[in-house]
Parts: sequence; C-alpha cells; structure tokens
Amino acid sequence: MSMMDVDLNTWRLLAHADTHFSDVEIVTQTSPTTTHRYSFGDFTKRSKKLMNVLDGLGLTENAKVATLSWNNYRHLECYFAIPCTGRILHTLNARLSSEDLIFIINDAKDEAIFTTPDLVPVLEAIAEQIPTVKKIIVMDDVIPQSSIEGLESYEELLSNALDEYDEKPIPERQAAGLCYTSGTTGRPKGALYTHRSTYLHALNAASPSGMCFGISDCILPVVPMFHASAWGMVHAAIATGAKIAFAYPHLHPSSFVDLLINEEVTLAAGVPTVWIGLEEELRSRGELKLSLREIVCGGSQPPKALIARYRDNFNIPIVQAWGMTETSPLATVARPKHSMRHLGADELLERVGGQAGIPAPGIDVALRDDEWSQVDWDGTSMGNLYVRGPWVISAYLHERGADSFTEDGWFKTGDVAIGSPDGYFVIADRTKDLIKSGGEWISSVDLEGALMAMPGVVEAAVIAMPDDKWQERPLACVVLDKDATIDIESIKAHLETQGFAKWQLPDKVEFIDQVPRTSVGKFDKKTLRAKFTSQDEPGSYNKN
Amino acid sequence: MSMMDVDLNTWRLLAHADTHFSDVEIVTQTSPTTTHRYSFGDFTKRSKKLMNVLDGLGLTENAKVATLSWNNYRHLECYFAIPCTGRILHTLNARLSSEDLIFIINDAKDEAIFTTPDLVPVLEAIAEQIPTVKKIIVMDDVIPQSSIEGLESYEELLSNALDEYDEKPIPERQAAGLCYTSGTTGRPKGALYTHRSTYLHALNAASPSGMCFGISDCILPVVPMFHASAWGMVHAAIATGAKIAFAYPHLHPSSFVDLLINEEVTLAAGVPTVWIGLEEELRSRGELKLSLREIVCGGSQPPKALIARYRDNFNIPIVQAWGMTETSPLATVARPKHSMRHLGADELLERVGGQAGIPAPGIDVALRDDEWSQVDWDGTSMGNLYVRGPWVISAYLHERGADSFTEDGWFKTGDVAIGSPDGYFVIADRTKDLIKSGGEWISSVDLEGALMAMPGVVEAAVIAMPDDKWQERPLACVVLDKDATIDIESIKAHLETQGFAKWQLPDKVEFIDQVPRTSVGKFDKKTLRAKFTSQDEPGSYNKN
Repeated sequence: MSMMDVDLNTWRLLAHADTHFSDVEIVTQTSPTTTHRYSFGDFTKRSKKLMNVLDGLGLTENAKVATLSWNNYRHLECYFAIPCTGRILHTLNARLSSEDLIFIINDAKDEAIFTTPDLVPVLEAIAEQIPTVKKIIVMDDVIPQSSIEGLESYEELLSNALDEYDEKPIPERQAAGLCYTSGTTGRPKGALYTHRSTYLHALNAASPSGMCFGISDCILPVVPMFHASAWGMVHAAIATGAKIAFAYPHLHPSSFVDLLINEEVTLAAGVPTVWIGLEEELRSRGELKLSLREIVCGGSQPPKALIARYRDNFNIPIVQAWGMTETSPLATVARPKHSMRHLGADELLERVGGQAGIPAPGIDVALRDDEWSQVDWDGTSMGNLYVRGPWVISAYLHERGADSFTEDGWFKTGDVAIGSPDGYFVIADRTKDLIKSGGEWISSVDLEGALMAMPGVVEAAVIAMPDDKWQERPLACVVLDKDATIDIESIKAHLETQGFAKWQLPDKVEFIDQVPRTSVGKFDKKTLRAKFTSQDEPGSYNKN
Repeated sequence: MSMMDVDLNTWRLLAHADTHFSDVEIVTQTSPTTTHRYSFGDFTKRSKKLMNVLDGLGLTENAKVATLSWNNYRHLECYFAIPCTGRILHTLNARLSSEDLIFIINDAKDEAIFTTPDLVPVLEAIAEQIPTVKKIIVMDDVIPQSSIEGLESYEELLSNALDEYDEKPIPERQAAGLCYTSGTTGRPKGALYTHRSTYLHALNAASPSGMCFGISDCILPVVPMFHASAWGMVHAAIATGAKIAFAYPHLHPSSFVDLLINEEVTLAAGVPTVWIGLEEELRSRGELKLSLREIVCGGSQPPKALIARYRDNFNIPIVQAWGMTETSPLATVARPKHSMRHLGADELLERVGGQAGIPAPGIDVALRDDEWSQVDWDGTSMGNLYVRGPWVISAYLHERGADSFTEDGWFKTGDVAIGSPDGYFVIADRTKDLIKSGGEWISSVDLEGALMAMPGVVEAAVIAMPDDKWQERPLACVVLDKDATIDIESIKAHLETQGFAKWQLPDKVEFIDQVPRTSVGKFDKKTLRAKFTSQDEPGSYNKN
C-alpha cells in the first residue's frame, strides 16, 4: 500500500467544520420575518450531541432513521449525525400522500422519524400503520399536542447529551442514505446511497463540473433536503466551508429576496418553477445589489425564455444541471466550453442554455436506440438515455425494478435525449411522455418550452392523447395570464413561427387554471392524462 | 451492493476526452515563435496508439516507464497511455544531476524512458549506468545522432500502431504514477501514486478547494509535468474538458505573454519565481486584455509584495496552494471565506494572501509540538505540520524513510507551520531552515518575505549560522537591483519597520549575484550554507 487507506465517508466531509470553518454561518429562515443563525462550530457540537442521542434511542446499529422535514439547521444536523453513527438517513418527501408515506416507511422499515411540528399531523394520520417506527422526535423546543403518544422533543434530548463523539471507522461502501423515487410510474422505489458515493458526489457537486462553490460562497439550497440529498449541496458546503442559507420552505418571494440580499447569497439552486415565481418580486425591487453569481436549475428543463429573462433583466446566469434520484442526483451540468466564449448571447443560449449538460468526471452517458445501437449526436436524433458511474445506483432497494439495469452495467433512465455535436445532451422527454405520432416522435418538452415563451402564457404542459389514425397526438394544457386573449389559432401560429412543423402542432388546447404538480414540484402529467382522457369517450377524442 | 462498483482509475479521467470534448484544444509552444495544436479527439487517438506501442515494447505488465521531458502534448499522451495499460508513469526531473538520475532510475528499475531530443545528451551521460532500461524513445519525428544505440522514434512507433484500445479494468488501488522527492536531505525517495489517489486528487484539483477550473477554462500549467503530476492540472483538464496550453519550457517572458493573450488562458499555475520573472514583460506591454482570472502559486511561499503588485498592477489575484510530492501534491489552498468579502485589500492580503491555505475535503492537517501536544491556532505559535488523507502517501517506495510516518497514520511533513484563528495555516519554515536563537525560533521565510518587499532587493535567502552564544543566528543572502544602494544598516532599519524585533534581525548580510536554485526551482539553502559556513573558520563567524 503506497497511499493512506482512508475511507471516503461522511466523517471526512464533517472533518473541517469544527477545525477550519468554526466561524462560518448557517442561517435558517424560521418564518418570513425571523431567522436562526449559528456557526459551523455550534453545528458540529450539536451534531455530536445528536449522535449520542441516536446511540441511546434503542435503535439497531444500522437502523434506517427517517426525516420528515423542510430545510433547516436541525435537518442538517440529522444529515450528518445519522450516517456518522453508522445508521442510514432516510429523507421522506413531505409532499407525499399518506398512502405513499405508509408504503415507503414500511418498505424501508424505518425505526425512528425526526419531524417538524407542522408535519406532526401528517404522521398522526398514518401513525397506526407504521409499526416499525419506535420513536418520533419533534425538531423544536416545544412539542405540539398530538394524538401520537410518546412524542419526544429534539431539544430536550440534545440538552442532556454530550457534545463529544469519537470518529467512527465506517467502511466507505456502507449505506449512508436512502431516498425513494417520486414514483410517477408504479410504487416508489428506494435508492440507497453509500458513504463513498456521498463523498464523491459532494466533491463533484462543489466543482465546476457540478455547481462550483466553496469557502468564498454562501449557498441557498432552495431544493428541499428531502429531494435526493438536496443535490449534494449541503454535504459539499459543510466539506468546503461554504456559508449556508435555508429559505423559509413555503416560498414567500419577498422573504426570499431579503435572504439573497441580507446573507449575500452567491449561488442558489432549485427547480425552474421557483425562479418563475421569483421574477416578479425581483423586478418590483428595482435596482438590486445582489451577490448572486449563478442559479443552478434542475429537476426539469428551464424554459429558454426564462434563462434569457434572468440574463437580460437581472444579469444572473441560469445554469442547467441534470440528474435523478438514482444518480445521487448530480450527473451533468451545462456550462459553456472555453471555445464558446465569443458566441453571441442567443447562440450561447441555443447551444448550451437549452442543454442538460456534459457528464461529470466518472459519469458516462450513452444514447441508444431500442436495438441498443448508438444514436448519433447530431442535434436531432433521439435516443434512450443510459447512465453509469460511481454515484449511480446498481439496484433499487429489495432488488425492485431490475429491468432498469442492463447486464453490462448501465442504468436505464427512462428518458429520451438528443445529443448535440458539441457533446451536450438535452432531455427530449420521459419515454412515456413522448408523443408517437404516425411513426415520428414529438417532444412534449419542446412544445412546452415554446408555449411558455409566448407572451400571455404562464405555464403549459403537453400530453399525448390516443388517436385512431396517428396512434397519438399532442394536447396542450395552457395556463394564461388573466388579461391574455389567446386561442388555439394564435397558439398554433406562434408555434409555427418557432419552427414546429404542421404535424407537430397540438390538435387541441385546454385552458386550465394551473398545471398540477407532483410531490417534487414537476408537472404532474399523470393527473392531466387521467383528467383529459376520462373527459372524452375512448376513441372519441379526435372528433371534437 | 447498492451503488455501481466503478474503479476510480485513469480510464475514468480519459472517458470524455473523445466523446464530449473531441473539439477542445491542446496547444504546445514548441519554440518561442511556433506552436503545435490539436484536439482532445486527436489526443485520445494518439494516446491509444501509444498504449498499443507500450504493449509491444517487451516491457513487463506493471513496468515502470519513465519520462524525461518538458511540458508538451507528447508528454501528455504518456501521462495517460502509460497508466491506462496498467504500467506506472515515472516522471524524471529534467533538472536533476546525473548522479541523482542514475540513483532514481536504478532505484525504480525503470524499463523504458521517453525523452525529448534536447535531453538525449543527459541520457548519453548515464546510459551505461542504467541497466534496467531496455528502450529509450525520442519524442520527435526525427531522432538525433547519439552515442546511445537503438534510440527509437516516438512518431515512427505511433505511425504503425492502431488507434483503438479496449478499456482495461484496472483496480483503483493499483499504482499509476511515481515521483521522487527532490531530496534536499539525503537521497531522493519515491512516492507511488495509485489510480484512486490520482482520480481523487484530480477531482479536487478542479474544485474551488483546489484550483477551480473546468470546461469554460484554458489552463496554463507552468509547473513542469515532472513535478508531482503537474499538481494534478492535466489530469483534471482532460477529465473536465478544459483547454490546455503548454508554454515553451525555458521561460521566455515575451512568448509566455503571447500565449496568455492568443490562447485566452484563464488560469495559470507555477512557482513564485515564474511570476517574478514575468512582471517586467507584463508591465512593458501597457494596457493588456488578459482573460487570466487567477494565478495559483505553489512550491514555495509567494512574497506578499508580489501578490500585492499583481493585484494592483494587473488586477490578477494570486492564490497560494500548498502541498508536497508526498501529498500528490495539492493539499490546501488559500481562498478567502465568504465572511471576508468586505475586508480591505491589505487586510485580506494579511489574513489570506499570506497563508498556505485550508485543507481540501478529505485532507486533514495537524500542528503538534515535539511532545505531540496540539499547538494553538493563534497566529503566532509554531508547530510541526502533519498531514493525512486519501491522496497522501503511507510509505515511500521500498519502505524508505519510515520515520516520516506516525503509527496512527500521519505523515510528518518536516515543515514548521503557524495556524491562524481564521483556520488557515502558513509554512513558517522547513524544520531544518528554522533558526533557533537562544531558545526562540526565527522564521527564515518571514525574513525573506520582508526583505524581498524592500525596494532595491530582487531576492533574498536567509540561513542559520552556528553561534557560540545563541546556538544559531540569521544570515541574509541578498541580491540587489543593479542601481540599488543598500547596506546592512538600511536592511536592519527596514526590517524593524516591518515589525521584527532586534533579536530577530540578521547579524550579517552577504550580497550575492543570485540565489542558487534546487532542481525544482526552490532556493537552494544547502548550497548557501555550504558556501558561507566554509568561508569562515568554525566558531569565527560571529567575530566578523
């Protein structure tokens, strides 16, 4: 052995929090007008107290310990304390239905749940149906009145605990975290992250092949900590000494902008809808001195029009990143090549802004057709997207969904993508969302992007409707500004100016009040399909 | 196993060069007025040809294959092709003495050497004394007349080779690279890098905890590729798609600045002397449109005055990084904390610019006194610097120098350092360069920094001279501008204004023509000590 055999585990990420970063701040908006702030030094002490608490709760040594919580400093303590004791952090999505929560908690066999007071009612509704859970700890000073017996107080437990804890030697291939996919098809499936994958993913998240931040930054993870490890942001921030700001979970544009200003946030990350929601507030403030040098956008494709508006109105670049729960999640990011530095803004938007990215060092992607032949990276051909790498899962928990993995080691993403001659790729669609019309594929994502760039259109979701002649045809579900006067003909005319061929245009438009969302904030096309398929008789759709 | 078990090896770093970065350029200055340029795509093809060549040379499967070369694209091909075949890349320092080269090549049992035509005479001088070497390959189209029989032409070998090569499954703990320490004490010792350490080191080098670059950058590694893997720069560039520019090896300031301009270099890295040498040329050019956003300076402490001049005259930040051959080398970097963003330029220079850095995620440092007690990080107390981490060696080749490793897993750097309350540290001195005067320690590095900030002083090196009364006293060896009128009294007066106490001032000053350099470009204090100790009779020194 020529090199030190150091296990890549969460202790290595935590190592400098107390020694080199003890003065760095962690700020949590506890309401639209109040904040809690403390230092990495305090955070480390309290995390070690929590490790001692965890060892005393009567859980098994490698127990799955769940959190049901928004973004805040106590959740951050759980993020590190649970895996540092050798147990597995299982982040529960606070927006899931009771039915999904019951399934997931039982499937994982969670032994304890850490939750915030406002989410206790969610647990009350399911408390009788999660028999493996021995302890429910409420992350606050006071615990609410509840039908659940024996709720424990996080702060009371911590107040009695020691703030010293010897580093535990944890092998790097041991499990550290668990997150379930949002389950747009079938039941949610568990993705188990190891200490090694968590460390590697965090190191990449901090680099320019990821989100690019470190000791000189203040990060704002708008992405919830119950979404795939908050995209690795908080792991990387604790490891590199970046200040952390947590926004109040229920987006209040005004308090959000206050945070950007007061904490001098330099990097923020979240799904596109967040930035759409924030635009009006930013505009209303007039001349702003923001420190924000970049927004990383993931979860779904940000409309190019949105990227252009942030560029032109606020001088803030929106960079797209792509990944899935199964890829830890950060797998690719779309930054321009050095050779593109003299491109005009619009060409850059086309060639990079509209892309999902280029894979990080260690991650490979492949585009294959249904016969497993390579698809050309020519900017138009669509292929099934496969991915592999050291922070990509090789199996779901309990070996479910085995058909998502190839024999030679690739994960089938279920996405259809287009590769560009520059080496970037973009998600054309989820395989199941793609519209197959007369043997040709129509991308619902492309149509949505073009629709959302049309003045007067707030949001748009496009779904496939069954069609006798063409197999499937596109239906556009459109949300309008209250003053907009738009009809199907003006929509078609707009899409034609954007380069869509006649056969690609939606045959029908439904004007709706809002696009329904999944638990992770994506457009919920399953609900739309259910709604607009049941409205017509089977086969009668095209007759309207 | 929940995660894909992907070995972290050089194949993972090479993976995207041909697929996503095939258009990215590698530019080599082949003379002060000529350049060679090709793409990552060409580079990959030629590297695969070289892999086939290597397999056909009759070497053992895990042979050590040496390079004796300056920075250029062929050396880069060796950097990847040799470890990708499972063999070990051994970079020989082109500035070493024949004696050291003979020792190192025999110690490593190198089986082949790849060299540039200008260095063939170096090998001619030692050819009879390196019996393990079966092949010497000259990296050029034509091979020079030589007393060495059977020299082979790199280009001829490549022209006959296939450019396809199947990825080899290389376990990550297998050796990939070998570099010998420069040996300021005793014989050079070998540091063996693994594929895993090379990957992790490169991933960190690309991040803001390292040098911070990626696909949007053009890097200029001024640091020679025979110095500790060129600080990980080329590994990281190939892995992340950063354009690479190689300067002509024998620093020609004019051609150097041409490269910065023509290739739009965004990040450059090298030892302080390079940037001292470049200042005059940069100044002479007047208003310059440089893309250079940062210089990373390592190898030895850059004088604060140099950092201030680059900041004020060229608006280019110099960031200090620290490491050793034994730490791969990049272990720490000194970037400001987010909380320091409103500090004045001078305070920032004091608190960060003058520091060696904060360790990267995974790397730990410790300051201990001789009794192994922790030394306070108070900005003044000196301690022995220890380091550990996944890219720090656990032993030298052939288990030499075992006393450099503690039983509980730390590497003794041989440096004395001071920790700051901010969590940064600075190298006060090599343990052996520190001046022990009357029980107190005087840092030669501090005195040198203050001396080199004095107008009229070009360079200064301070060494310890034996002293009957105080044990040791400082002697300053000073190089003056040709017009400067400076004597020992004005030097002492200057140092007093810089906050040095009377007992810390040098008793004697030697005015010299230049400070001798070691093979890696550092001040050669061994030679100075030999010169100025022998000049006086033992014990007579203090009587002058």
